[in-house]
Amino acid sequence: MKALQFTGNKTFDLQDVDIQRPAQGEVRLKVAYCGVCGTDVHIYHGAMAQRLSLPQVIGHEVSAEIDTVGEGVSGWQPGDRVTVRPLKPGQEMPVDNGVQHIGQNLKFIGIDTPGGMQQYWNVPARTLHRLPDNLPLTIGAMIEPLAVACHDVRLGEVKAGENVVIIGGGPIGMLIALVARQKGANVLISEVNETRLQLADSMGLATVNPKGTDLLAHVEDFTDGAMADVVFEVSGVQAGVTTMTQLPRVRGRIVMVAIHAEPKAVDLFRFFWRELKLIGARVYEPEDFDEAIALAASGTLQLDALITQISPLADAKSVFETIDNNPAGMKYLLQCDV
Amino acid sequence: MKALQFTGNKTFDLQDVDIQRPAQGEVRLKVAYCGVCGTDVHIYHGAMAQRLSLPQVIGHEVSAEIDTVGEGVSGWQPGDRVTVRPLKPGQEMPVDNGVQHIGQNLKFIGIDTPGGMQQYWNVPARTLHRLPDNLPLTIGAMIEPLAVACHDVRLGEVKAGENVVIIGGGPIGMLIALVARQKGANVLISEVNETRLQLADSMGLATVNPKGTDLLAHVEDFTDGAMADVVFEVSGVQAGVTTMTQLPRVRGRIVMVAIHAEPKAVDLFRFFWRELKLIGARVYEPEDFDEAIALAASGTLQLDALITQISPLADAKSVFETIDNNPAGMKYLLQCDV
Ligand SMILES: NC(=O)c1ccc[n+]([C@@H]2O[C@H](COP(=O)([O-])OP(=O)(O)OC[C@H]3O[C@@H](n4cnc5c(N)ncnc54)[C@H](O)[C@@H]3O)[C@@H](O)[C@H]2O)c1
Ligand SMILES: NC(=O)c1ccc[n+]([C@@H]2O[C@H](COP(=O)([O-])OP(=O)(O)OC[C@H]3O[C@@H](n4cnc5c(N)ncnc54)[C@H](O)[C@@H]3O)[C@@H](O)[C@H]2O)c1
Ligand SMILES: [Zn+2]
Ligand SMILES: [Zn+2]
Repeated sequence: MKALQFTGNKTFDLQDVDIQRPAQGEVRLKVAYCGVCGTDVHIYHGAMAQRLSLPQVIGHEVSAEIDTVGEGVSGWQPGDRVTVRPLKPGQEMPVDNGVQHIGQNLKFIGIDTPGGMQQYWNVPARTLHRLPDNLPLTIGAMIEPLAVACHDVRLGEVKAGENVVIIGGGPIGMLIALVARQKGANVLISEVNETRLQLADSMGLATVNPKGTDLLAHVEDFTDGAMADVVFEVSGVQAGVTTMTQLPRVRGRIVMVAIHAEPKAVDLFRFFWRELKLIGARVYEPEDFDEAIALAASGTLQLDALITQISPLADAKSVFETIDNNPAGMKYLLQCDV
Repeated sequence: MKALQFTGNKTFDLQDVDIQRPAQGEVRLKVAYCGVCGTDVHIYHGAMAQRLSLPQVIGHEVSAEIDTVGEGVSGWQPGDRVTVRPLKPGQEMPVDNGVQHIGQNLKFIGIDTPGGMQQYWNVPARTLHRLPDNLPLTIGAMIEPLAVACHDVRLGEVKAGENVVIIGGGPIGMLIALVARQKGANVLISEVNETRLQLADSMGLATVNPKGTDLLAHVEDFTDGAMADVVFEVSGVQAGVTTMTQLPRVRGRIVMVAIHAEPKAVDLFRFFWRELKLIGARVYEPEDFDEAIALAASGTLQLDALITQISPLADAKSVFETIDNNPAGMKYLLQCDV
C-alpha cells in the first residue's frame, strides 16, 4: 500500500509499505479522504519538529471505510463508513481535572502517532464515529474541523438571537460561523482576505474587512448598539487580539480558538471594566463529533462550498505548494483510495 | 460641618461647609468612619484628573448613622446604622446587557460625585445597607472592600475543597483570601512584601513569596499536583499576569480583579491548551453587600487584624503621606464624627 511519509524540510515521500494487521482494540481503515489542516501545513514548514519523530505519516481529518476489525472490537464491521476523533488519552493526572480530551498525557493521532495520509490506517476502535449513509465521504473528511467549531460554539454558549462576531474567516472561522448561524445567532465575520470575504458573502454570511472599515463602529451598527454577545478569536494575530476586547458588550464572552504561539498584548482593563469572560477552547469531545455529524448530515451547512480542491494522495507535494501560494484557499482534500 | 476637600496635586483642605438638606429620595448620613481605598490614593497622586471635577470630597468606604431622612424615603429612620454601596446607575444602554452595577452611564459615588470624607453626607436611600447592631462601625467601614471580595469569589465560583491561589496580598487580595477560606477553599497567597506576608501568616493563611521561591513548584506541592482551581490576579503587575496562566489546572478559572491601566503580555496559548477561563470582576452587586455584612457580623473573618490605623479626619494629610511611605500598611480609617 501507499503511505505519504513526511521526511522533514518540506519533503514528502510516497512509499510502498506493508499493510499492518490491526492490533487488539484497533480497526484497519481504508482511507477515503484526508483533509489538509493548518497544523499539517505548520508541520510541513518545520514547526513541531521536536514533537514529531520522522519519518511520519501525518493527517487527521479523515473519512474511511472499515477494512478489518481487530480482536476485542465489537460494534464495528468491515464496510462501515466512519470518521476518526484523533485523540488518544493517556494516563490521567491530577492536573487534568477529569477532562479527558486535553489531558497531560494525551497523544494527538496524526502528529504524535501515524496519521491518515495513507491508503490503510490502523486506529483504536474507540476513536471512530459512524457516518450516515447519506453523508458523502468528501464531507466526512470535514467532520473533524467541524467538530472543532461545534466545540467552540458550545463552550461559547452561543444562543439563538445572540450577536456573534468571528475574527478570522479561515476554515475554522467559517465553520464556527456556519454552526453559530445554525444555532440562530446573528453572525458577522471579520476577515482581511478579499477572496475569503467573497466566499463568506456568497454563503449569505455578513462580513466586514477591518482594513479600511472602522470595525468597532461597524459592529455597533450591526448590533444596534448592543455589541457582541460572543466574539471568537480565530485569526491568531495581534490585531485580532486587540479588537477582541473592544467588541463584546458587558459580560460578553470571548472564545480563544486561535493558537497564539507567543504571548500577546491583551487589554485586561476591559475584562475588569465590562466583566468580560475569555474561554479557551481546544479540539473536541465525543459529543462535538456527534453534533458535527448530525449537522453535516442535515445538509444545511453548505459544507461543499468550503472544498477548494480534491487531489490524489500522489499529488500531495503540489497540494502543499499550492496551499503555500494561495492563502485564500479553504479545504484541500487528498483522495487516498486511488 | 467639616468636609475634606481634595483640591488636586496631593492637597487636601478641611473646610467648614453648610450642612445640606437631603434631596428627594436621599438620606443625610452622619459619617462614622471612612476607609482610604487604593483608588483614593491614586486620585491623591493625580490619577483620574479628567474624571474628577475639583474641588471634590472623595471616599467611598463608609460606616454611618442616618441623621435625617429626605422626602419619599421609606424603610429608614434617623439612628439606623448603615453602609453605602457607592453606585449610581444611569440610563440603561443596550451595551449594558441588563447588568446594572457596571452600566455605561454608571456614576461612582466618591469619584464622580461627592464622597464620604466629611461629617455629614447625602446619599440616595437605595445605596444603603443596614449594619447589624453587633457590628462595630470600624468594621462597617470595611464592608465595601469586603463586598468587592465577595463579588470576586462569587464570580470565580469558588467551592469548598477547591485550591485557590491569590496573586497579591494587598487589602483586596487578603479579603478575597478570607472569603474564599470561609467557603472552605484551600487558600494560598502569593505576595512579595514581607510585612504583608507576615500579616497573612499571622491570620493562619498559607503564603509564598515568588521572589526566591519557584511559585509553580510551590503550587504543585501545595495542591498535590492538582494545581489551582481558581487564581485571583490582584497584584496589578506584569509578573502577576505572567504567573496567573501557569498555575491553573485544566479548565481552571482566573479572576481578573486588578486594574491594569495598560495592556499586558498574556500567554493566550495556555488558555487554548488547558481550556482556561478568564473572568473579569468589577465592584459588586447588592447581594455581595448582603453577603459581606453577614460574613463580617459572623465575626469569623478577623477583619480587625486588617486595620492598620484609625485617625481623625483632620489628620487626612498625614494619613495619605503615611500610606505613601508605608506600602505594607493595610486599611487606614478616617474617623469623621470627631
Ligand atoms: N482550538 C483548536 O483546537 C484549534 C483547532 C484548529 C485550529 N485552531 C487554530 O485556529 C486558528 C484558525 O485556523 P484556520 O485553519 O482557520 O487558520 P487560517 O490562518 O486559515 O485563518 C486565519 C484567518 O484570519 C485572517 N486574519 C488575519 N488577520 C486578520 C485580522 N486582523 N482581522 C480579521 N481576520 C484576520 C486571515 O486572513 C485568515 O483567513 C489558527 O490559529 C489555528 O491554529 C485551533
Ligand atoms: N475589581 C474591582 O472592582 C476592584 C476593586 C478594588 C480594587 N481593585 C484593584 O485590585 C488590585 C489590588 O488592590 P489593593 O488595594 O489590594 O492593592 P495593593 O497595591 O495594595 O495590592 C497589590 C499587592 O500585590 C503585591 N505584588 C506586587 N508584585 C507582586 C508579585 N509579583 N507577586 C505577588 N504579589 C505582588 C504587592 O506587594 C501588593 O501587596 C488593584 O489593582 C486595584 O486597583 C479592583
Ligand atoms: Zn486539524
Ligand atoms: Zn474602593
